[in-house]
Amino acid sequence: MSVAQLTKTERDAALADLSGWALARDGDAIQQKFKFKDFSEAWGFMSRVALLADAQDHHPEWSNVYNTVDITLTTHDAGANGGLSQRDVTLAKAIDALL
Amino acid sequence: MSVAQLTKTERDAALADLSGWALARDGDAIQQKFKFKDFSEAWGFMSRVALLADAQDHHPEWSNVYNTVDITLTTHDAGANGGLSQRDVTLAKAIDALL
Repeated sequence: MSVAQLTKTERDAALADLSGWALARDGDAIQQKFKFKDFSEAWGFMSRVALLADAQDHHPEWSNVYNTVDITLTTHDAGANGGLSQRDVTLAKAIDALL
Repeated sequence: MSVAQLTKTERDAALADLSGWALARDGDAIQQKFKFKDFSEAWGFMSRVALLADAQDHHPEWSNVYNTVDITLTTHDAGANGGLSQRDVTLAKAIDALL
């Protein structure tokens, strides 16, 4: 199933509405690195993001090293080789709302 | 606090005793990629690893993309620039025991 890729204008508008996210992968993804007090706090955050992701059926590409969590959002079904879609923006907004 | 780095002999013996782990970072880490049915199953595994990690006060460097979990174990306080220690082997064994 193909998903609509955001236009450059839509992308810029979405980014302006988000907190701390930056374009990555030539504009085909957004990325943010979150830092916490310790692993426990980072893991609590990840658990909440996992719940959001499963509810939205849209999952992050992410990594964790102790108190840092690096999240990349992209939509594999958008564009020819994956791109940014409204799904990424919706998940990013929900993640922002956790903090 | 400095932690003893495994000798090459100790490293080889430890690896032979583990399931599916390979040396990474010029022998200063061990790494394994785990694949699951879906995100839910991958997340369940990660949650169990997080509990082990916190109990052992030794945390993985890891990433997750949908149903895959890539775990790297290394000890920042072992050797000059981080290396493999008994802590990594102990955590890897506990992870193996989950599966």
